[in-house]
Amino acid sequence: MAARAVSVLITGANRGLGLEMVKQMVEASRPVGKLFACCREPDGPRAEALQTLAKKHPDVIVVVRLDATDLCSIQLCAKQVGSVVGTGGLNLLINNAGMLVKGTLQETTTEDMQNTFNTNVVGPMNIIKEFLPHLRAAAKASGMPGMSSSKAAVVSMASFLGSMANVKESYVILPVVSYRVSKAGLHMLTLCAAEELKTDEILFSLIYPGWVRTEMGGDEGEIDAPDSVKGMLSVMASLTEKQNGAFLSYQGSTLPW
Amino acid sequence: MAARAVSVLITGANRGLGLEMVKQMVEASRPVGKLFACCREPDGPRAEALQTLAKKHPDVIVVVRLDATDLCSIQLCAKQVGSVVGTGGLNLLINNAGMLVKGTLQETTTEDMQNTFNTNVVGPMNIIKEFLPHLRAAAKASGMPGMSSSKAAVVSMASFLGSMANVKESYVILPVVSYRVSKAGLHMLTLCAAEELKTDEILFSLIYPGWVRTEMGGDEGEIDAPDSVKGMLSVMASLTEKQNGAFLSYQGSTLPW
Repeated sequence: MAARAVSVLITGANRGLGLEMVKQMVEASRPVGKLFACCREPDGPRAEALQTLAKKHPDVIVVVRLDATDLCSIQLCAKQVGSVVGTGGLNLLINNAGMLVKGTLQETTTEDMQNTFNTNVVGPMNIIKEFLPHLRAAAKASGMPGMSSSKAAVVSMASFLGSMANVKESYVILPVVSYRVSKAGLHMLTLCAAEELKTDEILFSLIYPGWVRTEMGGDEGEIDAPDSVKGMLSVMASLTEKQNGAFLSYQGSTLPW
Repeated sequence: MAARAVSVLITGANRGLGLEMVKQMVEASRPVGKLFACCREPDGPRAEALQTLAKKHPDVIVVVRLDATDLCSIQLCAKQVGSVVGTGGLNLLINNAGMLVKGTLQETTTEDMQNTFNTNVVGPMNIIKEFLPHLRAAAKASGMPGMSSSKAAVVSMASFLGSMANVKESYVILPVVSYRVSKAGLHMLTLCAAEELKTDEILFSLIYPGWVRTEMGGDEGEIDAPDSVKGMLSVMASLTEKQNGAFLSYQGSTLPW
């Protein structure tokens, strides 16, 4: 990502895009310094692939428990990360964890709406709040002007399904109302964060990974996780203050709200 | 609103914009047939002005209890409305009830986010779902082609604060993160409803009332409730299928997402 080794945190790192990001980051020609790979159950069967990867890179990967819907677990995770990074801070936080419930408006329940909102919007908000001291520390410690993902940044996984401009075109194929509503909310949250924290020189961007063939995206997806992640990491590396509050595709193009 | 007397339901009808809508609708040259004025506590001190108005127009105004965060109260209200309107159905449903919590991202709590989301997004969703049979009945009974607010329509109170395009300009003055996130979610919900129910010829639009001097809007607002409502009722009366899924100001202009 940059000349010096940066610290990165990824939520939902045990599978799909999150796991692929961890893989590509540790195998990059300029690997990260510390990579906090977070998931809900680090010792469970669904984190085996991540644990295997972590054993191969014990100096870089730190597997940490984090449940986006549990404020206490976010606070404990932030404390643990802080004890590792110290005054160097956390350079890049990737809000990747998310959930999707299928359903038209008529099929969507109160619980679908609340669960999806808690995981996809309230979770990222609390994560941003709790990691803010570490992001601020990184911005201060970097000594670099402007904004970048190797200085201090939060990248959140956006979705074109959360784009108002996209509803007419895609609703019949993919109604997913609770997911669309949550992603529109996450987009707004990110814009607010970008405005509120620009004086701290912390960059906030939204990246849409594309319709990826993962457990969440299903088999009909348009691209595979490695291609999506390759694109996203390239976009992340190129972010500057011009992309603060931007909504970008994994190919780097700006998407409509 | 139209040549024949239509039935209308307004949520949050005991104060602010909701109460003003009830006033102007019953005093219009072509008054509505039935006006269901809903609020959380019809017998409480905060509904006194509405009850006084209802006593003046006993044949038109029906005050009904409805709490947007309580599915059971929505279902009971829908049942009560159904028993009055019968096969004629409900022509116009105005999702006006809403709440606002002030706060920057750093000040906003999980509870602020959840409460605002439940009232401003989940509530309108459940209200749409539960009143759908009455809206469908109205669309069938009207015998008119196309879409209109005198046939079958849902108008939801949007906010320019829920516009992604507006964040940079207004965030410093009005951070209100939980409100902005909820309104972006309501905008998305409305777009989804517009797509899903267009074959039923039920129209869904978003209207932004302007920054109004009410209890919610505060003293610094730009216009008074009567002017905002006058504008909104005029916009509602002019809605056609072209405005299905539209985001309009109280003056009728299209706003950016």
